[in-house]
Amino acid sequence: MKSLDDLFLHFLQDVYFAERQLVKALPKMAKSAQAPALKEAFTAHREETIHHVERLEQVFEHIGKPAKGVPCEAIKGLIEEAEEVIGDSEPGPVRDAGLIACGQAVEHYEVARYGALIAWAQVAGHTDVVALLRQTIDEEKKADKMLNELALKQVNKSAATMAKAA
Amino acid sequence: MKSLDDLFLHFLQDVYFAERQLVKALPKMAKSAQAPALKEAFTAHREETIHHVERLEQVFEHIGKPAKGVPCEAIKGLIEEAEEVIGDSEPGPVRDAGLIACGQAVEHYEVARYGALIAWAQVAGHTDVVALLRQTIDEEKKADKMLNELALKQVNKSAATMAKAA
Repeated sequence: MKSLDDLFLHFLQDVYFAERQLVKALPKMAKSAQAPALKEAFTAHREETIHHVERLEQVFEHIGKPAKGVPCEAIKGLIEEAEEVIGDSEPGPVRDAGLIACGQAVEHYEVARYGALIAWAQVAGHTDVVALLRQTIDEEKKADKMLNELALKQVNKSAATMAKAA
Repeated sequence: MKSLDDLFLHFLQDVYFAERQLVKALPKMAKSAQAPALKEAFTAHREETIHHVERLEQVFEHIGKPAKGVPCEAIKGLIEEAEEVIGDSEPGPVRDAGLIACGQAVEHYEVARYGALIAWAQVAGHTDVVALLRQTIDEEKKADKMLNELALKQVNKSAATMAKAA
C-alpha cells in the first residue's frame, strides 16, 4: 500500500467481502430471532445488504478494478459471535437481545469502514463514488438505530422479565 | 444464556478480553504511526484503555463475579487488520490513514459493546454499573472523534499527496 488509492482498494475489498458474508449470515439471524419485529428487521436488512453489494460493484467499476473481496477477519469474528449467541441460548427475548447487540456491532463496524472510504474518496475527488457510499452508510446507520429502538422499547424489558422468572 | 444477567456477563467477559488485547496492541500502533499527533493519540488512548480494564474489574466486583475474559474473535480480527496495514505499508501518511481507519473500527466496536451493556444494566437496575460503563463509552466516543479529526484535517490530505506523487 503505497498510495491512498491502494488503501482505498484494500478497504473496499474488505467491506465487499464483509457485505457478502452478511448476505449469507442474516437469514440465520432472522430465523433464530423470536420477536416478529426483529425477524422483519434482519430480513429487510438482508435485502438492503444485497443492494450494498451491488453498489460496491459499481464503485469497483468507477475506479476501474474488478470486484473482488479479501478475507476480513473482523466480520468473520462478528458473525461468529452471533452464532455463539444462537448456539448458547434458546429462542426468546434473551437470545433476541444478544442478536440485536451482535447486529449493532456489525452496523458500527460497517459505519466505520464506509466512513473511512467516504473520507478517502472525498479527498481523492471521486464524487460519484462518495454519493454511492453515502447511500449505504445512511442505511447502515438507520439499521443500527432501528435495532437500538427495538432493544430499548421492547426486547430488553422482556429479557429482564425472563431473568426475574428464572 | 438463560437470563439477561447471563447475557450481560458474557458480553462483559468479551469486552474485558477485548480491552486487554488493546492494551497490548496500542503500543505497536503508536510505534508504527508517523504523525506525532497520531502517535500521541494512540499512546494516550492506551492509558485510557488501562483504566477501562480497571473499570470493568469494578463492574465484575459489583455483580459478584470474578474478572475473566472470553476470547473475542471480533477484536482479534480488528487487531489483525491493523497488523496487516502495518505489514503492507511503509511508515508515512498512507499507513497513518490506514491505522486511523483501524483504530476507528475498534472504537465503533467498543461503543456498540458498551452501548448494549449499558442498556442491559439500566433495565436490570444496576445504577452503579451504568455510571462506570458510561465513563468508558464517553472516552471511546471521544477517541473516535479525535481520530476522525486527525484524518480529516491532516492525515488524509498528506496521504492523497503521496498518491499524486507516486
